Amino acid sequence: MPHSYITDGAEIYRQSFATIRAEADLARFSPEEEIVVVRMIHAAGMVGLEAHVRFSPGMAIAARAALEAGAPILCDARMVSEGITRARLPAGNDVICTLNDPAVPDLARQMANTRSAAALELWRPHLAGAVVAIGNAPTALFHLLNMLEDPACPRPAAIIGCPVGFIGAAESKEALMADLPVPSVIVQGRLGGSAITVAAVNALASRKE
Amino acid sequence: MPHSYITDGAEIYRQSFATIRAEADLARFSPEEEIVVVRMIHAAGMVGLEAHVRFSPGMAIAARAALEAGAPILCDARMVSEGITRARLPAGNDVICTLNDPAVPDLARQMANTRSAAALELWRPHLAGAVVAIGNAPTALFHLLNMLEDPACPRPAAIIGCPVGFIGAAESKEALMADLPVPSVIVQGRLGGSAITVAAVNALASRKE
Repeated sequence: MPHSYITDGAEIYRQSFATIRAEADLARFSPEEEIVVVRMIHAAGMVGLEAHVRFSPGMAIAARAALEAGAPILCDARMVSEGITRARLPAGNDVICTLNDPAVPDLARQMANTRSAAALELWRPHLAGAVVAIGNAPTALFHLLNMLEDPACPRPAAIIGCPVGFIGAAESKEALMADLPVPSVIVQGRLGGSAITVAAVNALASRKE
Repeated sequence: MPHSYITDGAEIYRQSFATIRAEADLARFSPEEEIVVVRMIHAAGMVGLEAHVRFSPGMAIAARAALEAGAPILCDARMVSEGITRARLPAGNDVICTLNDPAVPDLARQMANTRSAAALELWRPHLAGAVVAIGNAPTALFHLLNMLEDPACPRPAAIIGCPVGFIGAAESKEALMADLPVPSVIVQGRLGGSAITVAAVNALASRKE
């Protein structure tokens, strides 16, 4: 007997978001933030994630405005850049991931750092006004913060800082919110990752649910 | 003052896996399963995930043997296929994702199903002996189970069934373990997703941590 299940994608989204809004505690978020958090919860399959999400004031509005103005999206990992739904982007925005650039392995050796951190050096020509989406490597977020200590380094418009894991992830995100070089959002602690990061980008790119 | 942090990728992995083994309850897993679960926890940034992971008997051994014999890996989403570390694959295995095939939108309309489910119809020539990695869409897993109700449909060697979300995810994974057409692993409930699925593939592909 074949399994019977909902096969209408739009209806699956509608019921999913309704379930999240019924179960999650979203009261402390602004309307602009709420649609981002709902999508992050959706990607994680986890009501309760909202307790760990922190926006700096105005981040959601700043990121949305940047994307509408055509800002490129700079991603630390291919899972992030591949996950972004191109049809949601408001201005045919460039989605850039430099991790697999042939210059990166040598650069990483010279810097005595990870490839994920070294790849950010190749972001410099694209960084002014960009939306940064870090969903994998704490070393990438730490290196970005160190790059931005130089006042001559171009400023992105906003940072989605959601690296995941057990070593450096929590610390790198706390450092981002302490430095706050530009408006930012994080998932505090160990949780994070490419799916949650992609969800934030996709929500900031379009109000369509 | 620049932030100081661990920049040695191998050391980050070592400390991460040591933290997971110190904190997680892994006693009920076989040695072959344990290295898979540790990597799934790592990708999720979540000790406690292990309570939701269920292997059918012999799944980890069957999947590892299939990969060593050159099995293709069939992925439901680009985030899954992009996340698989090619250098870990033991036999230059093909990694296949048919979601963006130009035939899929029409097929989805004809089937009155999602593109994720329709894309699986294009798996048929690759399905015999393959390792299936479903990390996104419950409709893909349900459709695979319905395909496999036909005894003439080729059998994969193993299924990683980890779709995520609020509508159909838990149900599709329970259906997989109830039908159990081939050895399988799931994350019970809403949790799952591309990162956890990729982690399982990467762990089954190589014992290197």
